[in-house]
Amino acid sequence: MKTLIVHAHPEPTSLNGSLKDLAVSTLEGAGHEVRVSDLYAMNWKAVVDAADYGTDGSRRLDVVRDSGRAFDTGTLTPDVRAEQEKLLWADTIVLQFPLWWYSMPAILKGWVDRVFTRNFAYGVGEHSEIRYGDRYGEGTLAGRRALLSVTVGGHESHYSARGINGPIEDLLFPIHHGILYYPGIEVLPPFVLYGADRLTEADYPDIAKAWRQRLLTLESTEPIPFRPQNSGDYEMPSLHLKDGLESAGRSGFGLHVRG
Amino acid sequence: MKTLIVHAHPEPTSLNGSLKDLAVSTLEGAGHEVRVSDLYAMNWKAVVDAADYGTDGSRRLDVVRDSGRAFDTGTLTPDVRAEQEKLLWADTIVLQFPLWWYSMPAILKGWVDRVFTRNFAYGVGEHSEIRYGDRYGEGTLAGRRALLSVTVGGHESHYSARGINGPIEDLLFPIHHGILYYPGIEVLPPFVLYGADRLTEADYPDIAKAWRQRLLTLESTEPIPFRPQNSGDYEMPSLHLKDGLESAGRSGFGLHVRG
Repeated sequence: MKTLIVHAHPEPTSLNGSLKDLAVSTLEGAGHEVRVSDLYAMNWKAVVDAADYGTDGSRRLDVVRDSGRAFDTGTLTPDVRAEQEKLLWADTIVLQFPLWWYSMPAILKGWVDRVFTRNFAYGVGEHSEIRYGDRYGEGTLAGRRALLSVTVGGHESHYSARGINGPIEDLLFPIHHGILYYPGIEVLPPFVLYGADRLTEADYPDIAKAWRQRLLTLESTEPIPFRPQNSGDYEMPSLHLKDGLESAGRSGFGLHVRG
Repeated sequence: MKTLIVHAHPEPTSLNGSLKDLAVSTLEGAGHEVRVSDLYAMNWKAVVDAADYGTDGSRRLDVVRDSGRAFDTGTLTPDVRAEQEKLLWADTIVLQFPLWWYSMPAILKGWVDRVFTRNFAYGVGEHSEIRYGDRYGEGTLAGRRALLSVTVGGHESHYSARGINGPIEDLLFPIHHGILYYPGIEVLPPFVLYGADRLTEADYPDIAKAWRQRLLTLESTEPIPFRPQNSGDYEMPSLHLKDGLESAGRSGFGLHVRG
């Protein structure tokens, strides 16, 4: 495998930092190639602005059109081009982060906002009455697989089907489906550690064992069976799921998972 | 009303910028007080790091504990203290932003990550086997109301109940429930503009009329009836919704809305 690990935690000696280091050593030890984007160590610029597209306030910024033009003309900033190149190099992508306010830390959201430009991650393919682009299972990053490795402060029961925070698979759906599957990446079930703020050194050996196990079986792990947009499951042009395809009792985000 | 508008768009002449300006003039014209946090204009620091809590790499950063200690001792950075003060001043909060990758722009997520510190927005109240804090309907910001004003690039049908992107109310749930309701803020139904990238000047008068209408009726708008954590709807300590309380057909995030 060629694995890109995108790491988003400010403290190198944190649990997240340890899991990132363990992923590197485990994968390299098994003969895989690994590259790491350690966003805090890189002092990653989190905020989309005019400087990203060379417009610099001289005219009106239009993020969609300007990012597409900069992608097409090879004039994105070097930091963004480097991340796009890493994504194209990789066959496997691991995002390592703490769940902050039920989503990514801002620095990682800013990696998505800046790297997933138009014509690279969206706006790809034919857009017409009969087709709405190559997305959700197709796109620039098709053929790749991704895994979220997430630490969570709260209790696992609070994130279960009836738990007060909402089910973890629904909380992660906007990332799994909306960010990763959108440009074509298959998504593996996440590695989630609950109660991360209450873990002690004594808990770490079991955590490390479970994480190594996941890493060494990535190639044989089945992805979440999201429905490809252009597979016949959706009406056009509404992109509504066709009647009768849903499993019994499924609604909301769950409609977009097969089986 | 005392309204805080938190605005997150890099282009002042964008649709988002116009909606923010219209909110200021409409509310002030109706005799309300308005303060604006224009995050791009403020050059808001989006990224949580050791400098936020004065640890500066001299020892291990622990975001949860260090943010709580800095809050308790009044040693948070002046930019964060100013935003907390604005939230305490306001009775109404409007977040104005474009939906980027099914969530907030990084600069706004970074406003949440940095301003919603421990002991201010979480970790408030008794935590024991019989009570898990003052949250979801209770907390520091109880008594306030919030409204998301969101522009969305895609078509409305793609965000409907069976739409491929997932229902908009579920995509916004992590913000509505997980960020705003968590520290006690009641959440009003959002103001969402779809197809924002295809709107023209000719569309603006109708949009402005609808937005003014929402702004002038904020005080009489009913909030989304999320279930308060400590109202008897949840089992302790699991914080599972009690059996039989859900409406027919409701699952996932929808379980946590009454009626």
